[in-house]
Amino acid sequence: VLIALDAMGGDHAPAEICKGAVLACKQYGDIEIALVGDPEAIKPHIEATSSETMKRIHVVEAEDTIDMAESPAVAIRKKRKSSLHIAMQMVRSGESVGCVSAGNTGAIVAGGVLIVGRIKGIDRPGLGIPLPALERISLLIDVGATVRCKPLNLYQFGLMGDVYMRTIQSVEQPRIGLLSNGSEEIKGDELIQEARNYFKDAPVNFAGNVEGQDIPIGVTDVVVCEGLTGNILLKFIEGTGEALFSLIRGEIERRFLPKVGMMFMLPMLKELSLRFDYERTGGAPLLGVNGAVIKAHGRSKARAVSSALGVARDFVRKQGVQTIVEELEEGGVQIGD
Amino acid sequence: VLIALDAMGGDHAPAEICKGAVLACKQYGDIEIALVGDPEAIKPHIEATSSETMKRIHVVEAEDTIDMAESPAVAIRKKRKSSLHIAMQMVRSGESVGCVSAGNTGAIVAGGVLIVGRIKGIDRPGLGIPLPALERISLLIDVGATVRCKPLNLYQFGLMGDVYMRTIQSVEQPRIGLLSNGSEEIKGDELIQEARNYFKDAPVNFAGNVEGQDIPIGVTDVVVCEGLTGNILLKFIEGTGEALFSLIRGEIERRFLPKVGMMFMLPMLKELSLRFDYERTGGAPLLGVNGAVIKAHGRSKARAVSSALGVARDFVRKQGVQTIVEELEEGGVQIGD
Repeated sequence: VLIALDAMGGDHAPAEICKGAVLACKQYGDIEIALVGDPEAIKPHIEATSSETMKRIHVVEAEDTIDMAESPAVAIRKKRKSSLHIAMQMVRSGESVGCVSAGNTGAIVAGGVLIVGRIKGIDRPGLGIPLPALERISLLIDVGATVRCKPLNLYQFGLMGDVYMRTIQSVEQPRIGLLSNGSEEIKGDELIQEARNYFKDAPVNFAGNVEGQDIPIGVTDVVVCEGLTGNILLKFIEGTGEALFSLIRGEIERRFLPKVGMMFMLPMLKELSLRFDYERTGGAPLLGVNGAVIKAHGRSKARAVSSALGVARDFVRKQGVQTIVEELEEGGVQIGD
Repeated sequence: VLIALDAMGGDHAPAEICKGAVLACKQYGDIEIALVGDPEAIKPHIEATSSETMKRIHVVEAEDTIDMAESPAVAIRKKRKSSLHIAMQMVRSGESVGCVSAGNTGAIVAGGVLIVGRIKGIDRPGLGIPLPALERISLLIDVGATVRCKPLNLYQFGLMGDVYMRTIQSVEQPRIGLLSNGSEEIKGDELIQEARNYFKDAPVNFAGNVEGQDIPIGVTDVVVCEGLTGNILLKFIEGTGEALFSLIRGEIERRFLPKVGMMFMLPMLKELSLRFDYERTGGAPLLGVNGAVIKAHGRSKARAVSSALGVARDFVRKQGVQTIVEELEEGGVQIGD
């Protein structure tokens, strides 16, 4: 299994990305990695690696990089020698079966559509985020690949999320929820109601509408929504974590008693925060493209990079793309391209 | 200032609602309250009240009530003798200047439009929730009155939120943010981009796009969004609180050390949770209708009810409705009714 890894994308690139590649080779015996980027920048971070492992790491030169601030669609089109473009080109040509990047999310989505290409019959791809909730890990899809959706898009996100949770998280008959403003059938607008009609006849375990409070509790395995909503929710979660952290820190600095209490509480808080740290749950899959395209969190360090590579590998080994194609056919919906 | 209070709406009705009325009379010297509901059910909760206070509390009989589970639009139309219908009818007739209810949110919105009536020029009302964020209280509008919006609706929510934050929260030149999937101008869909065009020429302090993470941090005083998004966010916040609480409780039961730590941490956690308890920040205003219609949280107890009555009183005294009318004219947008 050869996975292309964008060595230049992410807050801690290239150091942590390269370390993640080495770690993944140790964790997954069957993986090979194409480390795409500036060889001079990559070199110092892999030179201590054993020659045994280095047989499975191939440095692929890329002259250019795409920054976080660049306009995604423009960058991916114009920067043909960027590490992300080349990594995705390797998937398109079949040289590698998937790619992983911790870089510019918009460029990954744009590249997924323009370079890797959509699965035939998929109208728009969906970016899913596995969120650790109280009762399970839920895949929130879409979080920004498709800002506004047609009913068909939401339906296809559900089908693809179903495949993902079965293959990667080993969930049997994942429960699929459609995010709405109420659980009753009459809730939601036309978009949501039409999407629900698709799901009703589909070969998935459709749980109907879910509401905002069902996400942190973890009522379903997949939560389907428009990219705009998912993006706002995801960033809201990040902001809430930051706001709480800053508040607690402020409180602790201000008082003496909590400082003593904190010594006792620390192990618990640490465990809680780990549990809710979605960066550690592996990568975010871009579902609906012809390959395992996995977005690692921008802040990913070696462990998270390795985890994202593991997700790409599992998705390939368990034939994620082929399964999506079959599901679409079984789904029996008219799917023009 | 006579405010109609729905004595029968809410989880703790009528007991806590009645206590809230009595409390409000003590807190606000100029308030009078029409306590609308079943006189027999109300009686035990106000009989201990001093005759001085009772001069300002008037029991208005209502035979019927609207449940939380009822279909809002149907209930408000058919149940003409329900406490909510009568309270709103009093606003319509001018008998009272505003009303407060902790009951069925959908029925309050429907009643606001159908009974109290919209302000001339307002296309759709918006339900705002004052959210305590890190740096300030932000009004999130709309949280469910208007599921899907036109650009004009979003713009009018912003104008009305501006008036609300000035009159009730005494914020000078409130910053108005438009919730989107990115801060850059090109982000958002057509709806958001057209709404932004309205704001650009408007006499408000428009801060451009805000993102999900800006809400808990409190970057702007008003956050404008579609009712679907706002509703999902609001319920997500509630669910997150519940999930965290249940997790922490489980952890404490499981360990000894945190139990000791908890004794130290408790005062701090209590203060933090109070700070983020949006039920205590007063009521949620239904903006865009011809009167001060305030939704109190369903779980409101006496203090929260009194606080919502205070919000209604302030909104009336500071001429909230008239100010909205004037802002609309200054806003210079074409506003057909």
